[in-house]
Amino acid sequence: MSLALWRSHLAGTLHRNRSLPVSRYLQLATVRANGRPANRTVVFRGFLENTNQLKFITDIRSEKIEEINFYPWGEICWYFPKTREQFRIAGKLVLVAAEDTDSALCLSRRTAWQELSEGARSQFGWPHPGADKAEAGAFDSAAPDAHEPLPNFCLLLLEPETVDLLELRGEPQNRSLYGRDGEGNWFVRSVNP
Amino acid sequence: MSLALWRSHLAGTLHRNRSLPVSRYLQLATVRANGRPANRTVVFRGFLENTNQLKFITDIRSEKIEEINFYPWGEICWYFPKTREQFRIAGKLVLVAAEDTDSALCLSRRTAWQELSEGARSQFGWPHPGADKAEAGAFDSAAPDAHEPLPNFCLLLLEPETVDLLELRGEPQNRSLYGRDGEGNWFVRSVNP
Repeated sequence: MSLALWRSHLAGTLHRNRSLPVSRYLQLATVRANGRPANRTVVFRGFLENTNQLKFITDIRSEKIEEINFYPWGEICWYFPKTREQFRIAGKLVLVAAEDTDSALCLSRRTAWQELSEGARSQFGWPHPGADKAEAGAFDSAAPDAHEPLPNFCLLLLEPETVDLLELRGEPQNRSLYGRDGEGNWFVRSVNP
Repeated sequence: MSLALWRSHLAGTLHRNRSLPVSRYLQLATVRANGRPANRTVVFRGFLENTNQLKFITDIRSEKIEEINFYPWGEICWYFPKTREQFRIAGKLVLVAAEDTDSALCLSRRTAWQELSEGARSQFGWPHPGADKAEAGAFDSAAPDAHEPLPNFCLLLLEPETVDLLELRGEPQNRSLYGRDGEGNWFVRSVNP
């Protein structure tokens, strides 16, 4: 596969914002089963090897699982404070759960688990997210195995279909829309901000 | 009206993050006419006087107008880097456009225009957002009147129905869900993060 046209710009942006840990935080919008939008912060975990798919992680017990199973489409909004650039990336969402049968994806899920800090791994052993707050002791479980993911650990992938890049620096600002032609090749056009 | 239960927490958060201009930036998710989610950064412009409604501004020519007219519901995700708190606020979206007949809302729209910088006001005189990039000269119009909004200037309001507050500091993190009872009174419950 070839790197999508917008990847080099994003790589430069990530590099220029590397001093800010928050530059790996972005907001993922999905649609709830009742048709209303949902929106939350997630952490960018890099690209799936040899693809243009963005990696995130989530807990199978979180609300977004139901939303994605109902309608597997998302749009991320990724704002970089230092360089004042915004990437809006829309595309299909793919969940890689414990029972996934694709061996390459299973390996990627396992690798994502191994790359987590011990503290982050422990959260997957906590009581059910969103349920009435459990007693403090319920959060004191032993650290999970560092190599084998807990069953409720999921890898979440976003396969981009469109990218809307806004560069706020400049007068007027630069805005570029990236899309794919009938053969899947990426193209870009400059539009008004 | 009385201040909603979550307002004092948000006021404290805004105060503690006041050194960061980016703390007034947040992400607004809506649903497109084709059912897919949309997500973009908007700037918080304070609360509408004597209400719990959050104020934003937008251009009547932007894509979100069509989305809101089609389905007037939004969810904002507002992450504060300094205090590591996230507010997810869902509710009804209300557009206040030039032809609005509510005199109080018309006044609020006019005030929002007057509070903008000259540079921000000028953008409402620029060529159509999202159209093929116009020549540089098309962005050189004279500064618009500082008192009377251009016709395409809109005030956008979010009337909160639910608030999901996550405080990442702490182990485990604190998460609070705010909602309204049958009589419209706000309540809160603590849930697992």
